[in-house]
Amino acid sequence: MSYQFIEQFKVRDYEIDIQGIVNNAVYQNYLEHARHEFLISKGLDFAALSKEGLDLVVIRAEIDYKKPLVSGDEFYVGLNFKMKDRVRFQFEQNIHRKVDDAICVQAIITGTGLNKNGRPGVPKELAEVLLK
Amino acid sequence: MSYQFIEQFKVRDYEIDIQGIVNNAVYQNYLEHARHEFLISKGLDFAALSKEGLDLVVIRAEIDYKKPLVSGDEFYVGLNFKMKDRVRFQFEQNIHRKVDDAICVQAIITGTGLNKNGRPGVPKELAEVLLK
Amino acid sequence: MSYQFIEQFKVRDYEIDIQGIVNNAVYQNYLEHARHEFLISKGLDFAALSKEGLDLVVIRAEIDYKKPLVSGDEFYVGLNFKMKDRVRFQFEQNIHRKVDDAICVQAIITGTGLNKNGRPGVPKELAEVLLK
Amino acid sequence: MSYQFIEQFKVRDYEIDIQGIVNNAVYQNYLEHARHEFLISKGLDFAALSKEGLDLVVIRAEIDYKKPLVSGDEFYVGLNFKMKDRVRFQFEQNIHRKVDDAICVQAIITGTGLNKNGRPGVPKELAEVLLK
Repeated sequence: MSYQFIEQFKVRDYEIDIQGIVNNAVYQNYLEHARHEFLISKGLDFAALSKEGLDLVVIRAEIDYKKPLVSGDEFYVGLNFKMKDRVRFQFEQNIHRKVDDAICVQAIITGTGLNKNGRPGVPKELAEVLLK
Repeated sequence: MSYQFIEQFKVRDYEIDIQGIVNNAVYQNYLEHARHEFLISKGLDFAALSKEGLDLVVIRAEIDYKKPLVSGDEFYVGLNFKMKDRVRFQFEQNIHRKVDDAICVQAIITGTGLNKNGRPGVPKELAEVLLK
Repeated sequence: MSYQFIEQFKVRDYEIDIQGIVNNAVYQNYLEHARHEFLISKGLDFAALSKEGLDLVVIRAEIDYKKPLVSGDEFYVGLNFKMKDRVRFQFEQNIHRKVDDAICVQAIITGTGLNKNGRPGVPKELAEVLLK
Repeated sequence: MSYQFIEQFKVRDYEIDIQGIVNNAVYQNYLEHARHEFLISKGLDFAALSKEGLDLVVIRAEIDYKKPLVSGDEFYVGLNFKMKDRVRFQFEQNIHRKVDDAICVQAIITGTGLNKNGRPGVPKELAEVLLK
């Protein structure tokens, strides 16, 4: 698979739950961190954008859990960014276990930007930078 | 809206993120806790089932984020359970802000059971108890 | 034991770790939530104070782990507040398992306030309210 | 400062709280992950030990919060291991911000091992490996 951006991770034991596998909610943390690192790779900073009055927010998450990650697993999140329409962007994100490249989680994350007045939209310059 | 089961919550400040709202991943924690309390209300125990060799696992989550919860918000998770087919169950779960009953999050969580050999399926007796 | 304030909780399964017990870090979440609810009971709001330019911060935590909490446990956090000196306050906080009132965690949390310039101190009016 | 083991990290935005800094409880996650990686560097595995019937548990944490970590900070956890007495071990752990090597958090974590019967103690062979 071909990705615009890849972020490397390793499972930490505190992320493992009562079933001995990474807890479902934790994968969303991984996905979010990969998106924010992608922004940084483009010269953008999620925290700074938020302070300046542009909040990038997730409006929909579709997540397929294929195989669980367990203690000690190394993995990476690959992502592709596109504009879904004029106000919404979409991240296609997959989590791959490193040892065999198996896809553990497949996600489609849809978001938008909210300005200080809570109006949705993605500034054109921002979209252009992220699409490169 | 009519729910089979309702669980009451209050936002805790450590669940708030850099944007001043409950972090996306945390809603999955709320949804999971509500499902486990629903099981308990039916005389079932997620942790005990796991020890006995039946792991209930989420295979797909679809989550729509409508309105953010903020510090101090009281809310509840309402849920309905159904069998999607012979091996998969589905939870329809909504998170309502208490002050105005607004739906903040809508989720459809699909899962299955895995026995000790990793074979998927939902024991018939289990399904019957949860459908009541 | 006599407490100024008590907050009721129940363990949620996502708080359980690989050892089948509540993860050490999670107890700090419980302790923090109890402190913030104590503030609210006094008419104060941690989030609002932070926005207004007074950040209450923890500078030291001493935590003794006596007995682990497990899935399904109901418990409460009891706390007492005092001024340790002119700029530092101290919370004595214990976590009690409800079924037998056993102390699971004993903590002494020392903190201070930081104003917009990062200078430590606790406004006198604030201290007076919390000492009542 | 001289450490037996060092683990590199970077703050993830979901670890930031309502005050715009890493939440207090999260530092315990960092400290725990560093300890588990230290075990792995010695050929030991926390999760595997737990399954085999030896649970390494924290019995006391003393944590001094010196400077907060913020979004984007790179940092490392340095640690030294010693036996405090025959049944208790102690980790001295410091969190250093990378940009200026400033110590952000100083911690002393005391622990023991619990065998299947819940009896505390640290197998001699284990202590020898960790002291090297």
